Amino acid sequence: MTKPRTAAIQYAHDHRPQFLNELNEFASIPSVSTEPANKEDVQRAAEWLANHLKDLGMENIQIFSTARHPIVYGDYLKAGANAPVALIYGHFDVQPAEPLELWHSDPFAPQMRGENLYARGTTDMKGQIIAILAAIEAIKQTSGLPINFKFIFEGEEEIGSPNLTNFIPEHKELLASDFAVNPDTGMIDLDLPTITYGLRGLAYFELRVTGPDHDLHSGQFGGEIHNPAQALCELIAGMHDEQHRVTLPGFYDKVRSLSAEERLSLSQLPGVDEATVLKHTGAPALYGEAGYSPIERSSARPTLEVNGLLSGYTGSGSKTVLPAWAMAKISMRLVPDQDPKMVEQQLRAYMQAHAPNTIRWEIIDLQGGSASISDRNSPAVKAMVKAFDTVWGKPTIFRREGGSVPVVAQFQQHLKIETVNTGFSLPDDNMHGPNEKLHIPTWHKGIDSLIHFFYNIADAQ
Amino acid sequence: MTKPRTAAIQYAHDHRPQFLNELNEFASIPSVSTEPANKEDVQRAAEWLANHLKDLGMENIQIFSTARHPIVYGDYLKAGANAPVALIYGHFDVQPAEPLELWHSDPFAPQMRGENLYARGTTDMKGQIIAILAAIEAIKQTSGLPINFKFIFEGEEEIGSPNLTNFIPEHKELLASDFAVNPDTGMIDLDLPTITYGLRGLAYFELRVTGPDHDLHSGQFGGEIHNPAQALCELIAGMHDEQHRVTLPGFYDKVRSLSAEERLSLSQLPGVDEATVLKHTGAPALYGEAGYSPIERSSARPTLEVNGLLSGYTGSGSKTVLPAWAMAKISMRLVPDQDPKMVEQQLRAYMQAHAPNTIRWEIIDLQGGSASISDRNSPAVKAMVKAFDTVWGKPTIFRREGGSVPVVAQFQQHLKIETVNTGFSLPDDNMHGPNEKLHIPTWHKGIDSLIHFFYNIADAQ
Repeated sequence: MTKPRTAAIQYAHDHRPQFLNELNEFASIPSVSTEPANKEDVQRAAEWLANHLKDLGMENIQIFSTARHPIVYGDYLKAGANAPVALIYGHFDVQPAEPLELWHSDPFAPQMRGENLYARGTTDMKGQIIAILAAIEAIKQTSGLPINFKFIFEGEEEIGSPNLTNFIPEHKELLASDFAVNPDTGMIDLDLPTITYGLRGLAYFELRVTGPDHDLHSGQFGGEIHNPAQALCELIAGMHDEQHRVTLPGFYDKVRSLSAEERLSLSQLPGVDEATVLKHTGAPALYGEAGYSPIERSSARPTLEVNGLLSGYTGSGSKTVLPAWAMAKISMRLVPDQDPKMVEQQLRAYMQAHAPNTIRWEIIDLQGGSASISDRNSPAVKAMVKAFDTVWGKPTIFRREGGSVPVVAQFQQHLKIETVNTGFSLPDDNMHGPNEKLHIPTWHKGIDSLIHFFYNIADAQ
Repeated sequence: MTKPRTAAIQYAHDHRPQFLNELNEFASIPSVSTEPANKEDVQRAAEWLANHLKDLGMENIQIFSTARHPIVYGDYLKAGANAPVALIYGHFDVQPAEPLELWHSDPFAPQMRGENLYARGTTDMKGQIIAILAAIEAIKQTSGLPINFKFIFEGEEEIGSPNLTNFIPEHKELLASDFAVNPDTGMIDLDLPTITYGLRGLAYFELRVTGPDHDLHSGQFGGEIHNPAQALCELIAGMHDEQHRVTLPGFYDKVRSLSAEERLSLSQLPGVDEATVLKHTGAPALYGEAGYSPIERSSARPTLEVNGLLSGYTGSGSKTVLPAWAMAKISMRLVPDQDPKMVEQQLRAYMQAHAPNTIRWEIIDLQGGSASISDRNSPAVKAMVKAFDTVWGKPTIFRREGGSVPVVAQFQQHLKIETVNTGFSLPDDNMHGPNEKLHIPTWHKGIDSLIHFFYNIADAQ
């Protein structure tokens, strides 16, 4: 199928301005799923995507309402009963854009600067969704689609997919497919096409510590009352020991140990050396669990991070208040075979053991998802490796990633299919931070790769 | 001088609605000194006060500009060269009202509920200023003033009096007086008239910890970078040891130890028992430095408090960010002979010894003032004790207070005068917190007490 590929690739190149316009439109919708004020925007993003699928000639399009944000389904099954079915996964919600003052342009008014398009969601992951749909359009408009497609797009990935978790087992037949593609995991570095075979799970909590029942004057009562901000700091400080290991009771009990082969393979990845990590982060020095390398710490070992802190007076200048309460957002990245519910129990056990009687505390469970390890030798993975070789002329990097995509474990469990985790985001794309961007030349190569990938799947039949 | 007293007291009782109206007007001005947005409001409060002094027949009224907020001066020297001069100190600035959602009425629209007037600044200390001016008006309008007065009102007390500190030594002649009155220290409990003879000093800092140079994805980089919020918590946790003593190097070196007599006297104060402190604060249990009683901890021992914490994502729901920085507002209450500059060096020494090389840190000095111990047997103190006995029929309580009024030490140092520290605020007035209020029946007794006090001063000549 060389000739149809050439036509489809040509079509994709000719229509790059159109694809960019589509991404501009899509990324202009502030579909921040965690923020109740943006609920309508998440709905708008779902509708935009459903309409776009319709324009592409996809069928059976449905927007499923859930308890919070909608799920978009669509399919194209005209390639025949013998052709394989690819399940395309994506999420149309985005992270909050705050702190806004650090953005150099409006996070929801995409702006090209140099080779990059800046806006929240460009790389995570509206650009990745548009890349897949662009590849499908290019094939459909030239040779026609040689394989079948199903699409499942959610609006709650950034808040832990609370409704997709139930939707998948409840719609096994609708979603039945031969393999899945999730372009949400990105590249290890520029010009290094990457497939992620290991993903960490996530458990995310809010920990609230309360002391007095109202804010007090720190001169009047300071010294005789346990300051809740201080108490929270003391509890957080105790969550790591001197080896920088997490101290929650039983935290490492179920953690699969790394094989010598996997450690060797991780150590040989490009861009995982100390200098590169320091360059990408701007941190003054590295840190982490004793006995493990940086890439092991950030991808194959579980971690506990403080994602937010709030207490008392935080404006300019001074206010001599003894605050009534203090709050921390705390999350754990999990590896097989840890379980988010188990980790919640471990956090509660830690608090029961260490919280003093001078304060009250409360844990609010905000999201959770399991870790996964994917088959590195499935036919779909092989088709993707071949496509990357064609477009980049390079072998594919296989890695474990620190981030969390619990849907991969759910597809394994309920649909019995493996997922190809890939994508065209770069480590310096400022995912989740200010000035998120997408590198457009890489994105173009990504579209070409996906065209080859779908033809490779068809050829392998 | 019994007859003039009766007339002045009667005048004060007849004019209570007018005094309350004045306080309503004064407390409606949001003169929040720490907030740049309220600069004009602080100026308006200065002008309101200057006009009020003029209406009362005070003279030589001046509003001194400073680098930030103005200082108001006025005097009345017609009682004759032989009559004593009382220096009246007060501050017309207030603490921020945040968190606004916890107020039951607008903090700058005073509202009477039951026996209390609710608004920011009613008790701290616009109500106290109006009480003194009401007493002076009552005497002036009936018998005429038997002593001389000077007034010094600042707009920066809540931010550590940065400009009054220089103003006092530069205006020694203008401010020359026989004694000072500062009605900013309040009562130990309802119906217990109180003079405060010991005040703690204050050192207030912002501590900023920086890790990466931008917010990172906690899944991508978590585990290999030291989380600045975690690092800040670890540093704060280390600032107290297991005995709840402050660990800054040398922190207790200059602290005067408490005499057996003073400890006995503090232990006999009313309202200092555990049950009362728990009732006033709503805390689940008491806390504090080993070896000291609650009242010793909160008034006679130095403390270190966290007044604010901020880092990362603090909105609703979850955001998996590894924050670039974390900030704490940290303040120390000081006792004789600690010095704020010395304490800043101790904090820096602590950070140099304990901050890891995985983060960067910065300390911003926000305010400082020294502690003081006042003469308990001065003629002015005796005149106030007699006035309290007349109005309340009770002996005056002498106490050390945990709060900070550095101007008392400055009057001692530069003007060589002692200050009578008193006032009519109550421990449950929610000073510095939401729903600050003034207990009006106590305020009325306060006005009567001040009338007797000024006559007692004149009689003692």
